[in-house]
Amino acid sequence: MSEVKVGIIGYGYWGPNLTRNFYEIPSASLVAIADSSDDRLKQAASKYPHVTVKHDYRELFELGLDAVVVATPPLTHYRIAKDCLEHNLHVLVEKPITLKSEDAKALVELADSRGLTLMVGHTFVYNSAVRALKNYIDSGELGEIYYLDTARLNLGLFQRDSNVLWDLAPHDISILLYLLGKKPVSISAQGTASVFKGIHDVAYLNMTFPNNVPAYIHVSWLDPCKVRRITVVGSKKMAVYNDIEAEHKIKIYDKGVDAPPPYTDGDFGEFQCSYRSGDITIPNIRFAEPLRQECQHFVDSILNHTVPVSSGTDGLEVVRIIEAAQYSMLNGQTQEVLKW
Amino acid sequence: MSEVKVGIIGYGYWGPNLTRNFYEIPSASLVAIADSSDDRLKQAASKYPHVTVKHDYRELFELGLDAVVVATPPLTHYRIAKDCLEHNLHVLVEKPITLKSEDAKALVELADSRGLTLMVGHTFVYNSAVRALKNYIDSGELGEIYYLDTARLNLGLFQRDSNVLWDLAPHDISILLYLLGKKPVSISAQGTASVFKGIHDVAYLNMTFPNNVPAYIHVSWLDPCKVRRITVVGSKKMAVYNDIEAEHKIKIYDKGVDAPPPYTDGDFGEFQCSYRSGDITIPNIRFAEPLRQECQHFVDSILNHTVPVSSGTDGLEVVRIIEAAQYSMLNGQTQEVLKW
Amino acid sequence: MSEVKVGIIGYGYWGPNLTRNFYEIPSASLVAIADSSDDRLKQAASKYPHVTVKHDYRELFELGLDAVVVATPPLTHYRIAKDCLEHNLHVLVEKPITLKSEDAKALVELADSRGLTLMVGHTFVYNSAVRALKNYIDSGELGEIYYLDTARLNLGLFQRDSNVLWDLAPHDISILLYLLGKKPVSISAQGTASVFKGIHDVAYLNMTFPNNVPAYIHVSWLDPCKVRRITVVGSKKMAVYNDIEAEHKIKIYDKGVDAPPPYTDGDFGEFQCSYRSGDITIPNIRFAEPLRQECQHFVDSILNHTVPVSSGTDGLEVVRIIEAAQYSMLNGQTQEVLKW
Amino acid sequence: MSEVKVGIIGYGYWGPNLTRNFYEIPSASLVAIADSSDDRLKQAASKYPHVTVKHDYRELFELGLDAVVVATPPLTHYRIAKDCLEHNLHVLVEKPITLKSEDAKALVELADSRGLTLMVGHTFVYNSAVRALKNYIDSGELGEIYYLDTARLNLGLFQRDSNVLWDLAPHDISILLYLLGKKPVSISAQGTASVFKGIHDVAYLNMTFPNNVPAYIHVSWLDPCKVRRITVVGSKKMAVYNDIEAEHKIKIYDKGVDAPPPYTDGDFGEFQCSYRSGDITIPNIRFAEPLRQECQHFVDSILNHTVPVSSGTDGLEVVRIIEAAQYSMLNGQTQEVLKW
Repeated sequence: MSEVKVGIIGYGYWGPNLTRNFYEIPSASLVAIADSSDDRLKQAASKYPHVTVKHDYRELFELGLDAVVVATPPLTHYRIAKDCLEHNLHVLVEKPITLKSEDAKALVELADSRGLTLMVGHTFVYNSAVRALKNYIDSGELGEIYYLDTARLNLGLFQRDSNVLWDLAPHDISILLYLLGKKPVSISAQGTASVFKGIHDVAYLNMTFPNNVPAYIHVSWLDPCKVRRITVVGSKKMAVYNDIEAEHKIKIYDKGVDAPPPYTDGDFGEFQCSYRSGDITIPNIRFAEPLRQECQHFVDSILNHTVPVSSGTDGLEVVRIIEAAQYSMLNGQTQEVLKW
Repeated sequence: MSEVKVGIIGYGYWGPNLTRNFYEIPSASLVAIADSSDDRLKQAASKYPHVTVKHDYRELFELGLDAVVVATPPLTHYRIAKDCLEHNLHVLVEKPITLKSEDAKALVELADSRGLTLMVGHTFVYNSAVRALKNYIDSGELGEIYYLDTARLNLGLFQRDSNVLWDLAPHDISILLYLLGKKPVSISAQGTASVFKGIHDVAYLNMTFPNNVPAYIHVSWLDPCKVRRITVVGSKKMAVYNDIEAEHKIKIYDKGVDAPPPYTDGDFGEFQCSYRSGDITIPNIRFAEPLRQECQHFVDSILNHTVPVSSGTDGLEVVRIIEAAQYSMLNGQTQEVLKW
Repeated sequence: MSEVKVGIIGYGYWGPNLTRNFYEIPSASLVAIADSSDDRLKQAASKYPHVTVKHDYRELFELGLDAVVVATPPLTHYRIAKDCLEHNLHVLVEKPITLKSEDAKALVELADSRGLTLMVGHTFVYNSAVRALKNYIDSGELGEIYYLDTARLNLGLFQRDSNVLWDLAPHDISILLYLLGKKPVSISAQGTASVFKGIHDVAYLNMTFPNNVPAYIHVSWLDPCKVRRITVVGSKKMAVYNDIEAEHKIKIYDKGVDAPPPYTDGDFGEFQCSYRSGDITIPNIRFAEPLRQECQHFVDSILNHTVPVSSGTDGLEVVRIIEAAQYSMLNGQTQEVLKW
Repeated sequence: MSEVKVGIIGYGYWGPNLTRNFYEIPSASLVAIADSSDDRLKQAASKYPHVTVKHDYRELFELGLDAVVVATPPLTHYRIAKDCLEHNLHVLVEKPITLKSEDAKALVELADSRGLTLMVGHTFVYNSAVRALKNYIDSGELGEIYYLDTARLNLGLFQRDSNVLWDLAPHDISILLYLLGKKPVSISAQGTASVFKGIHDVAYLNMTFPNNVPAYIHVSWLDPCKVRRITVVGSKKMAVYNDIEAEHKIKIYDKGVDAPPPYTDGDFGEFQCSYRSGDITIPNIRFAEPLRQECQHFVDSILNHTVPVSSGTDGLEVVRIIEAAQYSMLNGQTQEVLKW
């Protein structure tokens, strides 16, 4: 196979963006689009006159596709992705991969058993700034990682039957898992349902990663300011990724505190830290559209039989973490320890 | 009495600022300064040649003072303040008033029994921006208060035998108590000791005020950016107080979400919020040095026999809250309910 | 006519944006695209398969079009626009309308004599923020206008045979003419050709409008920071339009200085101004894509036989001003007085 | 002489700052303060009880002083400084050194003939950020200097019988002379008197330095935003010094444009620039109070018999440039060429 024949399922809010990207990728061929809405199908047909459009996604099974992209509402992800895998199609599902971890696990096992690529749309792990941040961590330039703190705030679009955790936290959790290359060992969360009873609009998560590295996540649908920020504090340097900045998204601070030597012979009374406050560097990061990178990566993973960076297993991890966070948030704020 | 004779105890980091203010207040007379350090006494004597300087604060008891200001290390607050009250002096103590709530309670009772003014140096409640913020809340302009969120971050000065909670959180807790005019009903806290074992340098507090109004506090000695921010989210408007801004410290956002009516007859499928995103206003706030306001208020409270805005009882509240937060932070992150 | 049949001439840098907008406007019908480059024609054909594509713009004359959009290099504007007008087509030309004022004048006269709509692509006069700014001026809310100051800076794309004046100043000049509704009475300019001999990359213009209202324009291809700012200082209030801001583009400052009364009887020694420094307001401006507004306005002007807001005459004004500024910049920095 | 005995003449707006610094400098001895106002003398006496205070500055001539600091209104600078030099005192005069260049010249010659130190208070040349900027220029890190652009704007304090040129431009002119180490060869200026007839409140200067390096200065008393910015554009890098920033005052941009080689054999049609857009660096600059540096430098220059960095001659240069700019601004905006 030198070209992947792709079908899009769901042409609502995000589907058109995915469609445009697959349309423009040379090693992919956009064959068909399915959506239950007449209006949206008409829009799709007008923009892509040579592409087949269908009301029922199951009609796509007869078109000789290699892969599908599932961009339908989260509640339907499991059912549709399962159906597609069972029809031997490679699948890219939007985040969150499912709304239950057992469903995500079933999808992962199904894809494995059939040798199919299952990928989840954690777009931020294809973002140049996040990749640069990971390089700073992995290269040791930041030193030992002390902790991470993230915020994703705005006056957000409230959704019935969902909450701010399921809507925004998958971004930050997938970024943290990617940056650290590890799973958390424990999670707790607290939150508030201010506007609508039972729909949490503000949440604070606290995850502990191996070696006692904590990470704090703040997500909100109810903040006057738009904030999308990740702070990584290391023993040598500190990094801030501010996604709101048009150009200067990453700042590296040569700042830190050095502890005194543990045994200062005969001088127990002294407590002298030394503080460093050196230059700040704003690296020039060559930006590429993250969604394009993601779509290209899906195609490449299929063609090269390689595991994607945001695999089904990564999607499963994120769902398990949100499940645990939600449980903690709703049941007395107590701490939850995950046994994976 | 038409003038309050004042002595300063402690001429270290903060003492010189208090001294300068009492020196310049017409209704106060700066009579004496005590400090255990020769160097600092010399500095004080050179700057204020007409003022008596003493090594031992107890020597101030023979100078006919009306009041003292205690600006010594927190560990000594209780002992010195008690001694001064027992010598019938009005007392202004720096924050935190004591390191144990039982000590603070004893001071409050002692002052009450002797009819003396006991005040704590919660400077922010004398800050014009905080006062303006309280006006926005009390006037109803923000509507029902949904929640508050504060952050006070920087590369801070680590202290042996203390932590970031005791150092920074008194500011935010005293502001919240002042803004809401209420005590919290529960508290939990989480934190990290990254650099020095046992000395927490990052902490997140979660307080619940009556009517389920939550407040979140983030304090850090280990952040690359200097942040001092308070966000108040109301049902009608939202306010942000950014103390780092040189001029435009308060922004009022005419933003909000309105829930749909609870029963929308016959149309269960719809979930339509209406969003407001109106003008932002940056009010011009006439700034007065908060410390000057505080010192003047101490003098006025003595002369007028009135209870100060930051009374000993307020100091006690803050200590109780930090004690509870510290307990929560160190014992399994579980939630603490305070019974006052 | 209920629908305008449109052809696009030039599918290079800006043409695709114009094409997309006319494609999406219901009262327009995108019929044909002409470009001399095979590659670009192929791109156009692939994106708009039902649209006729041609190498030579003159082939468009046989397709029954009502109007054309000229988005070719500035050097060709006059020749192509003239040809199209002579073929009885309504014409929208990109800015600058021509490179010589006599050519612009000829186009205006030709369009007038044939009753055709001639419009120039001064996009900023269709920008919501600029329109809001004009409302603040026209309503008198800013008071008497004292002066205006604009800056449009960046590391820009150098062009052979052009300079920063012709590239960037048309934006600011067209905005100023629109805001004030008047023509300047005099102009001077100074500039620098730092990188390439003879190609000015930095320029400062000084225009005087009637009633001695000055306006200063700073344009640069050689600045490390991206700046797009317009300041309007009035006797009552001041306004800043910062186009770089993602959301808060306009700020209204209730600031000013009031002169003392001219005769302060018997007290010649005093000079007391009173300063106002009140609130700052950031109005919420509903944003609509300016280019869409522009394209729709072209179509509406044709259908309704009305003069467009950015008419050929406006294009001519801007060219005359740039000609004068360039003359001033190159000939001893002396001031030029325009006689219109 | 191991200690310089100093008298302060003028204890108004700026005098107290100078007084405090000389009071705290070990190698200086603050002996006396003169001011014509009873109130101000009283304030001085209360703050510095051991210092002699006098109404008439001439009474200071009998106190055995080595040096005086003249911080009186500009109109009196010449007369008082001359009197002090004639009494064999070293003199530090606030900026502008005089209001006429012939007066400044007379002071320089008088000081020279008597072997006295004459220094002008161009504080910014003692500013750490300005010094760092000069290092970047002198080290060649910025490459060849293309141009400089400065802005100093605010809602300023209007003064009768002065204008924004004399009030604000001395800062920028003294910085430019210091940074480049050269005098300008020509000057022109334009300005506006918006609020008070005859008192210019907004001005734009254009200076040309040797090798055709232009510098543009924008000063305003009538702008809603506080701006204090200097941009230096070089062939290799660009630097911005933003004095409003609390901490990050200097940013170095690794940005630039490289011209194509002059002869590209056989390919006249091509015009390919290459653009660099690399990292931005914010150097950590150790800040020292500029006024303290200035006062210490005055004392050191006297003790070591060395010419100060901001000598009387530098003061004279600045006055000559402002005279020329003012002439240009008032007489038809024509360009003035200075013959020094």
